Amino acid sequence: MSYGMIATWRMACDGIAAATQALAEGGSSQKAIVDAIKMVEDYPFYKSVGYGGLPNEVGMVELDAAFMNGDNFDIGAVAGSRSVKNPIVVAEKLSHERFNSFLVGDGVAKYAIKEGFELQNMLTERAKKTWQNRLEEIRHSNLSPYDGHDTVGMVALDQTGSMSCGTSSSGLFMKKEGRVGDSPLSGSGFYVDSEIGGATATGLGEDLMKGCLSYETVRLMGTGMHPQAAVQQATMDFAKRLERRKGKCGAFSLVAMNNQGEWGVATNVEFSFAVATDQLAPTIYLAYPAEDGGNPQIEVASQEWLDAYQARITAPIK
Amino acid sequence: MSYGMIATWRMACDGIAAATQALAEGGSSQKAIVDAIKMVEDYPFYKSVGYGGLPNEVGMVELDAAFMNGDNFDIGAVAGSRSVKNPIVVAEKLSHERFNSFLVGDGVAKYAIKEGFELQNMLTERAKKTWQNRLEEIRHSNLSPYDGHDTVGMVALDQTGSMSCGTSSSGLFMKKEGRVGDSPLSGSGFYVDSEIGGATATGLGEDLMKGCLSYETVRLMGTGMHPQAAVQQATMDFAKRLERRKGKCGAFSLVAMNNQGEWGVATNVEFSFAVATDQLAPTIYLAYPAEDGGNPQIEVASQEWLDAYQARITAPIK
Repeated sequence: MSYGMIATWRMACDGIAAATQALAEGGSSQKAIVDAIKMVEDYPFYKSVGYGGLPNEVGMVELDAAFMNGDNFDIGAVAGSRSVKNPIVVAEKLSHERFNSFLVGDGVAKYAIKEGFELQNMLTERAKKTWQNRLEEIRHSNLSPYDGHDTVGMVALDQTGSMSCGTSSSGLFMKKEGRVGDSPLSGSGFYVDSEIGGATATGLGEDLMKGCLSYETVRLMGTGMHPQAAVQQATMDFAKRLERRKGKCGAFSLVAMNNQGEWGVATNVEFSFAVATDQLAPTIYLAYPAEDGGNPQIEVASQEWLDAYQARITAPIK
Repeated sequence: MSYGMIATWRMACDGIAAATQALAEGGSSQKAIVDAIKMVEDYPFYKSVGYGGLPNEVGMVELDAAFMNGDNFDIGAVAGSRSVKNPIVVAEKLSHERFNSFLVGDGVAKYAIKEGFELQNMLTERAKKTWQNRLEEIRHSNLSPYDGHDTVGMVALDQTGSMSCGTSSSGLFMKKEGRVGDSPLSGSGFYVDSEIGGATATGLGEDLMKGCLSYETVRLMGTGMHPQAAVQQATMDFAKRLERRKGKCGAFSLVAMNNQGEWGVATNVEFSFAVATDQLAPTIYLAYPAEDGGNPQIEVASQEWLDAYQARITAPIK
């Protein structure tokens, strides 16, 4: 049977490489999602997810995450989590609750403490310096403070045909306290149905939630469309509609996989993503939006690009 | 030009009666939604919305609300709001923000204070007694603590063809701290597109968000379906799917209106709702699910039913 994972951003690749190895050995899609996203959360140099994530405007890291089981539609989510070490692990646990499966703010830590989850101060020295530097930049220029919002989102298919998806994000850099984006919102940040496929989004959450793009992508796959055609149509049709109706549209990047392990990507900005299946070794791709609004141009990330990325995210910050 | 409003539950009727009067005089759909929901929030005897709403398991009232503008898809939302007098007013204000338009927990009050909104302790003596009595009941029996979740949701169409929608809720009675339902979630609790129509939901939020039912209802209306056919198909197809895949499905009740002022309702439980249009004086209906899964049976609420309702919600609590 086919198996595979697709995920947003280069940072997802090590996680899905390890998790698809487990899928090859018969592991479940649920465990693949949790284990792979946990790896991204734990790596301190990924500055938009988990430990090391960038703080809000008052210097606190507030994290959003969600988990969805495509077999029975169970969803667990957290938003504005300030002290849980692994938001995705708590989200997965919440997905088993019939009531109270989406918790925000203080409620997340209270639940996590009662359930025995690990807590941690999620602010790294590096993230604090980046925040302090940004405050200085904003003070000396007229820049919008909001320029980073790289959610890790993943979809997994296991050999039994079960599918799951998950997201994890520190949200918009310099966001207001308590701001929530699309990442923990069903249908916007993620959606999965094991009888069809799954999709997940990254970009400007305030605009992504206007279109319910992950739900729409899965729905279109359910009509028989290939994941590439489905994600392209869902994303670009709504991007055009939003530009027409509101005059502007934020960054939208979505990835999708169906229950055959076929996949697709749509984006209106330069975007990296990662795929691994029984047919394809773990691969990092770069996607560039087409000028005519058609399918993005996709290429495998070069070693030069990967080296520059690693150097950039680990470079010392003054 | 046509105008009208449709809303969940009997409690909505006074608000939509006043607001459709304003629509008749040329008022906007945005103002109609905010004014009508504000009336529901302010009335202390409605125990699931705003002031007088029922508290969470530790005795605090935590409120969710959202506003959506169907012209440009602007969305504002709050969740876990503890001290804002009118969550719908804050949600509408947030809908004008390009960033940080969905706030939760502490962040809601901090924003509201900076922006000059009114604060209020939302716990009434009556709600506190109801909570204390419930604690006793739970202590003496094996009842599930979660039995109330009546969100007010409204869709409005004005004479210019502009549509808006909004929701407001204290969420699940006895919920865990920080629990969020479908009410502030785009596509699940609400969705509106002025070129098509709008829909809004009430029921078990944890299950409603599994299906993105408000988005799906609007999408189906966009294919040319009448609101009744659209809301019925979206709701019942997913209710059946959830029963098949998970073995159970919570309460689902949705109302919808298109941009001609035509409307529809779907529900899997007994449900009251209110409608007022240029063709129809403000009317409270009762809907009963059909045994064969077809359209619900609808009847105008009798004076006897209305009197019993009013007596029940204002009866002294020991």
